[in-house]
Amino acid sequence: MATLRCPENPVIRPKDIPPLRTDFEVIGTFNPAVTRFNDEIILLLRVAQRPINPHPDFELVPIYNAQSNEIEIKEISRDCPDSNFDDPRIIYAANEVFLTSISYFQVARSKDGINFDIDTSEVLFPANNYETFGLEDARITRIDNEYYITYVAVSPMGVITCLAKTNDFKNFERLGIISCPDNKDVVLFPEKIKGSYYAITRPVTPLFSKHDMWIAKSPDLLFWGQHKHLLGADQKSWDNLKVGAGAVPFKTDQGWLEIYHAADKENCYSLGALLLDINDPSRVLAKSKKPILKPQADYELEGFFGNAVFSCGCLEEKEKIIIYYGAADKYTARAEVPLKDCFDSF
Amino acid sequence: MATLRCPENPVIRPKDIPPLRTDFEVIGTFNPAVTRFNDEIILLLRVAQRPINPHPDFELVPIYNAQSNEIEIKEISRDCPDSNFDDPRIIYAANEVFLTSISYFQVARSKDGINFDIDTSEVLFPANNYETFGLEDARITRIDNEYYITYVAVSPMGVITCLAKTNDFKNFERLGIISCPDNKDVVLFPEKIKGSYYAITRPVTPLFSKHDMWIAKSPDLLFWGQHKHLLGADQKSWDNLKVGAGAVPFKTDQGWLEIYHAADKENCYSLGALLLDINDPSRVLAKSKKPILKPQADYELEGFFGNAVFSCGCLEEKEKIIIYYGAADKYTARAEVPLKDCFDSF
Repeated sequence: MATLRCPENPVIRPKDIPPLRTDFEVIGTFNPAVTRFNDEIILLLRVAQRPINPHPDFELVPIYNAQSNEIEIKEISRDCPDSNFDDPRIIYAANEVFLTSISYFQVARSKDGINFDIDTSEVLFPANNYETFGLEDARITRIDNEYYITYVAVSPMGVITCLAKTNDFKNFERLGIISCPDNKDVVLFPEKIKGSYYAITRPVTPLFSKHDMWIAKSPDLLFWGQHKHLLGADQKSWDNLKVGAGAVPFKTDQGWLEIYHAADKENCYSLGALLLDINDPSRVLAKSKKPILKPQADYELEGFFGNAVFSCGCLEEKEKIIIYYGAADKYTARAEVPLKDCFDSF
Repeated sequence: MATLRCPENPVIRPKDIPPLRTDFEVIGTFNPAVTRFNDEIILLLRVAQRPINPHPDFELVPIYNAQSNEIEIKEISRDCPDSNFDDPRIIYAANEVFLTSISYFQVARSKDGINFDIDTSEVLFPANNYETFGLEDARITRIDNEYYITYVAVSPMGVITCLAKTNDFKNFERLGIISCPDNKDVVLFPEKIKGSYYAITRPVTPLFSKHDMWIAKSPDLLFWGQHKHLLGADQKSWDNLKVGAGAVPFKTDQGWLEIYHAADKENCYSLGALLLDINDPSRVLAKSKKPILKPQADYELEGFFGNAVFSCGCLEEKEKIIIYYGAADKYTARAEVPLKDCFDSF
């Protein structure tokens, strides 16, 4: 596998972005959506922040208040019975669950795809009661001349997927909730196929403990149905715990190519390729026997949630793809993968 | 509360239906959908069956095989490590989850709403890989002259909701999956409201351990979006663990009236009323402070899953509603509730 990590990796780090408040710290600039816009490469970066916490006895949890339009800080005592602080991302308190950080999106621009300018004025920020725990893991799909953004919103009501659109990456219009909880890693195909829009989704079945990829159809991007199961975890392979869509699928002469992520039973997140029928993307033609990118570099192995690479977008170039990905839930990194290597992985 | 249980209750019992095979037993005839059709009252009964099991050392699990179109029987050893047989409905084996019975639908007809003829030839039975663990808890919504049926399909891929329709209750046309996992207790409103169809849904958020009611819109009943949270469990009331839609909502002069179910922290299932804005049913106007029906009769307290009343449909009559409901996941029962009592419960 000739996967080539960018020598400048990580191309974006938490220190590249100032915190929202002096009492906050930026802990992640990761999992960016990516697209070309005019003569630039644009990332919609997930920026995660948390209150600086000098107290060993309690956690400080940031929560967006939709009424006051401000982030409030809640103290959770570490002595709380029946609580669990093992996962760095999540606090399981007695009767409530919290996230340890709050995420939102910032726009990063680049001419060369390696050096990015981050404009802090262009921000997609929590704005309603479905978004009180933050916005996560956007994907951008260009359809005609509109840029549609699917993004995850988290609140105590659940983990949902919302749709927004923009045509300038300065103003974003929210179009509503397209997946009710818990459903994330939703990516839109870039064109209608046989008269329907398609999206890959990732609903959860708690009863059967599965995190599988499904696919849905829509007449208009707003209303979705005709759901089908697409791909489950493969007990005998590298993708043996959870699978979910990553990048926006793109056309190849062999079918739709989707870069997806999988977690294995050691909670290691890797990337693979999935080939879907060009006329019926609910038909899986092939998937990678081995990952095309797995955590190996220092910045992938250690961070906020180590041993993880996770992509929300890639760019097609001649004979290769450029994958932007989150590394260890902390950094944004970039890698080039020859298209041939994706096909050879099947 | 002047809730009046039918003296003939339970109006349908498992012994009223012959098993599919001589080595099976019928263990439940419950949770019926209900509608008026021509001059009859029609129930779409959930019939649950399981293999007769003389073996104390293992469970016999019925699974529909979509390739052979037959029910196969799987043996699960009770000695299996990491397994759990505590819930009479579900077996948690080492790496798999099974249901202890398989359900499908049969049509029951009545002139008086109390004495039912059950025609075993009219059956909606599992027919594909999404339905291998059975069909559960249908609701019938008449829209114009079509009868739309939402029903739960269960398989190892999850608990989903499918749509079907009929205009004779002999032939049923499947229209696809409208909710991906886990999402059940989906009921359709009987008409368009301000240009959109509406459905109440019940997605699950495993991260936040919530089983709340949501509401969605559709242009055509097939594709759904614009999801909104409708009603969560109320920590301080009778509905403090899970809530879900029950009957098909109907119009009153005060708004849409929905008979919903709730489980409390003792896993007791009761029924209450919910009043929704007539022009915007995502607006909750009122809900019952106390249940309008809670388990009390012998056939509600003891059965397959005791201490449970659960409705999938009711009929409106002058000044009262007739609720058909599953009792203890075993029987079908009937009760009359004065409409005034529903409003007085708010």
